[in-house]
Amino acid sequence: MAGKSNRQVVLRSRPVGWPKASDFELVERPVPTPGLGEMLIRTIWLSLDPAMRGWVSEAKNYSEPVRLGTVMRGFTVGEIVASNHLDYAVGEIVTSASGWQEYAVSDGKDIVRKVDPAVAPISTALGPLGHTGMTAYIGLLDIGQPKPGETVVVSTAAGAVGSVAGQIAKIKDCRAVGTAGSDGKVDLCLKEFGYDACINYKTSPDIGAALRQACPNGIDVYFDNVGGAILDAVLDQLNVGARIVICGTIGADASPTGPRVERRLLVARARMQAFVILDYFDRFPQGIRQLAEWMGAGRLRYREDIVDGLEKAPETLVRLLEGGNLGKQLVRVGAAPA
Amino acid sequence: MAGKSNRQVVLRSRPVGWPKASDFELVERPVPTPGLGEMLIRTIWLSLDPAMRGWVSEAKNYSEPVRLGTVMRGFTVGEIVASNHLDYAVGEIVTSASGWQEYAVSDGKDIVRKVDPAVAPISTALGPLGHTGMTAYIGLLDIGQPKPGETVVVSTAAGAVGSVAGQIAKIKDCRAVGTAGSDGKVDLCLKEFGYDACINYKTSPDIGAALRQACPNGIDVYFDNVGGAILDAVLDQLNVGARIVICGTIGADASPTGPRVERRLLVARARMQAFVILDYFDRFPQGIRQLAEWMGAGRLRYREDIVDGLEKAPETLVRLLEGGNLGKQLVRVGAAPA
Repeated sequence: MAGKSNRQVVLRSRPVGWPKASDFELVERPVPTPGLGEMLIRTIWLSLDPAMRGWVSEAKNYSEPVRLGTVMRGFTVGEIVASNHLDYAVGEIVTSASGWQEYAVSDGKDIVRKVDPAVAPISTALGPLGHTGMTAYIGLLDIGQPKPGETVVVSTAAGAVGSVAGQIAKIKDCRAVGTAGSDGKVDLCLKEFGYDACINYKTSPDIGAALRQACPNGIDVYFDNVGGAILDAVLDQLNVGARIVICGTIGADASPTGPRVERRLLVARARMQAFVILDYFDRFPQGIRQLAEWMGAGRLRYREDIVDGLEKAPETLVRLLEGGNLGKQLVRVGAAPA
Repeated sequence: MAGKSNRQVVLRSRPVGWPKASDFELVERPVPTPGLGEMLIRTIWLSLDPAMRGWVSEAKNYSEPVRLGTVMRGFTVGEIVASNHLDYAVGEIVTSASGWQEYAVSDGKDIVRKVDPAVAPISTALGPLGHTGMTAYIGLLDIGQPKPGETVVVSTAAGAVGSVAGQIAKIKDCRAVGTAGSDGKVDLCLKEFGYDACINYKTSPDIGAALRQACPNGIDVYFDNVGGAILDAVLDQLNVGARIVICGTIGADASPTGPRVERRLLVARARMQAFVILDYFDRFPQGIRQLAEWMGAGRLRYREDIVDGLEKAPETLVRLLEGGNLGKQLVRVGAAPA
């Protein structure tokens, strides 16, 4: 790879409020050379995730903020193109945290797993068979613990995490009700992901009333990817023993205050529990086997929103945060393996 | 008992805001006669509890509101003075939900358990060896799950529930930090209940700063009897994996809105779980055995605030809700058994 250039996107400025494309910069550097026990990975797919908003912020978070001038953090699928590592061979496909760049050196510690291209398209290792699928799997099953016949509400129901959560709710014989931010997403939920009902929260005049109509037996589990106004409405409709899974809070930014939760939790003897998928990496092998089995049986569908070119990553992240995507947001950074 | 009168306190009007003494009325009715399978219980001790505020309110709650014109609900310890019930004999002491009256007929269904006067004073069956002790026991151990070395914060730390929660935290080798509403209560926490630190939240200029000083290693468990401003402050100081036990919300009334919780829960991967002791009656025999063992070993202390006379119950409830009590609030309704 000597002499070949490595395109990277670095974080140039700390975003004020939401990230803008101009907070990032495309740079070219030489492709690095792997040392002893290291390997070189060529990025094929880059995952864009709502959590990136937190990664570039200086606010207290579950991970350190990305430092200015360094390559933006991101989960990737890539091909090993050079290896001095005993456990990895040239030509193998792996998921890693290579970040927003075409090539990355790895000592293997950031590699979550090897990807078998025979099981499913390798891009699914960043979606339903990757961290977003596992976020839905752990969040709904371990934290939400739905029982047959219960009503499960999912926000960002058409998203990479939400769509898997909704489909697992159906697999577990629950009523699945979604909220989404466009008619296209609502359609996708009803026609592709099998939700029993889905609400366009942007056009609904009264989200509480719409939820009440969609959940005639109350709400037992809320898989919450947004927080904010939808969470407020759900809290008023909890059944006794309800569980709220706090997975994302992007909708809570607009209003720093809201109706108090403690009395409503007490009346419903309810639980509200947050989790971060980084704490559950040991569960990935078993969970992904289960998700792949459901996918093979046609019970777990997925939708991808693909943008070509690393240089499009900043503007695509902004679009994702604005809800402009339809399906799991991916950036194709490099060609599929030969 | 024929011809003898039964003094009762009935709920006369639905309180507007907090209950007033004038919402209740003392009446006299004939002592009822137990039928087949029933018994007559003479009330000795009546427990007054902050939860009574909810019981007289029409707001949605975990139990039906007390109906106007009926005897006010309450937990009691009494002596069986007549029995047509095979399981209960005259002279036995029982805990029941006889309410605010001198005599009550029971079919045994409201009787939680028989009380052995040899173990401890029978009034403790309404406190540390009763529902308040069990509220602390279940809330702290089942829901809060403290581990040795962790920091446990308890609000209303000197109260009937809080004082037991704080002492169990110490038994479990935790740092116990309390909040209380008077210097007398703070003293009681430090000198009698063994808290490592206690904050008078009414005189503290900055409850957040005071908590930070008292909890140099952050907060792992918060046993919350109040909600509101103290909960807000605790949410800013949670350690990763923290557990918040929602037991009471009396402090949340003053402000219907507050800082949003979802982001702070997510950053700490924390859990917030409400519970109601009524759901845990099957745990009482085991739990009370454990609490009695700790009491016998001098590791569980208690303080009672005793008022004489059923007619004093309304004004004493108001005083309790204002925080004027020091120790478990009891009303002595009748003489101890001969």
